[in-house]
Amino acid sequence: MLAEILEQPEALRRTLRRLEPLGDDLARLGTGRPQVLFAARGSSDNAATYGRYLTEVVAGRAAALVAPSVATAYRSPVRLEHALVVVLSQSGETAELVETLTWARGCGAATVAVTNVGDSSLARHADLVLVTEAGPEHAVPATKTFTTQLAAMAVLAGALAGAPLAGLEQVPGAVSDLLEHRTGVDAAIEGLLARPRTIVTGRGLGHAVAAELALKLEETCLRVVPGLSYADLRHGPIAVVDDQTTAVVVAPRDGPVLDGLTRLVPDLQARGAAVVAIGGDAALAGRADVAVAGPDLPEVLAPIGLVVAGQLVVEGLARRLGLDPDSPRGLRKVTQTELGVRR
Amino acid sequence: MLAEILEQPEALRRTLRRLEPLGDDLARLGTGRPQVLFAARGSSDNAATYGRYLTEVVAGRAAALVAPSVATAYRSPVRLEHALVVVLSQSGETAELVETLTWARGCGAATVAVTNVGDSSLARHADLVLVTEAGPEHAVPATKTFTTQLAAMAVLAGALAGAPLAGLEQVPGAVSDLLEHRTGVDAAIEGLLARPRTIVTGRGLGHAVAAELALKLEETCLRVVPGLSYADLRHGPIAVVDDQTTAVVVAPRDGPVLDGLTRLVPDLQARGAAVVAIGGDAALAGRADVAVAGPDLPEVLAPIGLVVAGQLVVEGLARRLGLDPDSPRGLRKVTQTELGVRR
Repeated sequence: MLAEILEQPEALRRTLRRLEPLGDDLARLGTGRPQVLFAARGSSDNAATYGRYLTEVVAGRAAALVAPSVATAYRSPVRLEHALVVVLSQSGETAELVETLTWARGCGAATVAVTNVGDSSLARHADLVLVTEAGPEHAVPATKTFTTQLAAMAVLAGALAGAPLAGLEQVPGAVSDLLEHRTGVDAAIEGLLARPRTIVTGRGLGHAVAAELALKLEETCLRVVPGLSYADLRHGPIAVVDDQTTAVVVAPRDGPVLDGLTRLVPDLQARGAAVVAIGGDAALAGRADVAVAGPDLPEVLAPIGLVVAGQLVVEGLARRLGLDPDSPRGLRKVTQTELGVRR
Repeated sequence: MLAEILEQPEALRRTLRRLEPLGDDLARLGTGRPQVLFAARGSSDNAATYGRYLTEVVAGRAAALVAPSVATAYRSPVRLEHALVVVLSQSGETAELVETLTWARGCGAATVAVTNVGDSSLARHADLVLVTEAGPEHAVPATKTFTTQLAAMAVLAGALAGAPLAGLEQVPGAVSDLLEHRTGVDAAIEGLLARPRTIVTGRGLGHAVAAELALKLEETCLRVVPGLSYADLRHGPIAVVDDQTTAVVVAPRDGPVLDGLTRLVPDLQARGAAVVAIGGDAALAGRADVAVAGPDLPEVLAPIGLVVAGQLVVEGLARRLGLDPDSPRGLRKVTQTELGVRR
């Protein structure tokens, strides 16, 4: 896992080089389709969540996540003639997602596959394929296949908005800087070791990072970890926060969600929690008990770096817990949600 | 909380009586709008999840959940001229949701408010109001306001499908039967007491029930409880299931997700978990360690009864843990996600 975390700057460079020329094709495919839907599972589902926010915030198209069971269990005919449907699967072989893509085509959608395997079943069924250039990923927890999916989402949103996202070319370098300096990472690992409960929170474009880091902690550290927007956290789950909790707050360096995330910190501390901030500005770092440096990127692209900082923390924590982050208990790389039985 | 759980048959009867005559108005408002979006927080968000599946499965319209931060933090103009936007809020006074509704109108959407307070801010801004007739709810955890929201979702989906859902009139009686017999409830409480970890899983139309029971357990029993579709569970979080875990499996008596939920049970048991089934058929009950009876309702309406069976378990567990289910630690009835600061 660590080796693959460290490959990310190069994987991102390769992916952007391959995908940026497809902007015009993506824009054409999306013409006359004001609605963009994403379908995925696991880490890819968190990449889809980033794509969904980006599509609305930078491209002004209504975006949402598909419920695969509507396609594969209920087989419901849904009107999708105004929709572009984007299906993400690292392997391109999760049967449920291949079936969701073919269902969407049958319902009138234009379809895009985002996959790390260019000749996969998913790729063969899509109108357009965005191949991430992560290279083979051996550790079960997704790292470089996840961040390259985020890069694909950024290319897609730029294409639908009519202009590439400003700062996209700075992403590999910003990730490189994080990996080199690891500012705050070891202190964060100690903070998470010290208390058995963990929650992760973000908001808006960073919601996906909170969900992904929570999933990574569940997979590799075998903790039950909610990964929530702070708005959802305040609506009930905050009741579980206590002095046995470390709260990880993920924030961009600027933008409209930073203030609410910063004001969350003393509320979490008042409930007894220790707070690890990942990213944010000096005010957030100053309030947190531990501050992990985030990437020097604008908010719309910050998630690609924020998750890398978090990956370093999770991987280190798993090893300090005596667990093997490369092969978590009871997980396999290609997940068949129906155990091989196509529904 | 228990008193309000027991009022649900009557609250459902009143709500259906009030909302069923609005079917034609709902159908007219939805004409020419193939997309239906739901916005809510907390328990209402789980009711919205039920509405989202129902709308796709029975009415064939693309449905999804709105991300309120796109409206209230990013204030992004999104094209919603093909959308019907349904905002759910018990109090009708959560500022974030009122703002989301007015944003949606500004983006071209037709809007529906689902609220328990007919003269609330949310109701005043909507094109059409569905007032649930739950009556005042005093306990902080939503029970009767939640099930009456589910009833509103069933009325809405029927209106958009062109015909009321078959069996809707049986719902209050089926809930009454569950409350009278409480089959398996006490054994389930003992099962959940015996192990410190809890997860809740469902699928498709029942996904909302899993999420809602998990939230209720977090709010009232102060456990961190994932509430996931079994497909998402298999994609990573299943790693945390062990012999300290009770897994609650929520299932309808029939339909396309029952088989996958039944086959999940031995996989959870193989990881050491004890399984509490809520609902399902005899095969599911036979495999589970504890079986709680579900409602005698068709799958599309089963969630309204399944959640009631779960509420009895949660409320009893909270009391056995020495906690006050009516006033959980650190929660208030009307949640302002921005602490009163409008963004």
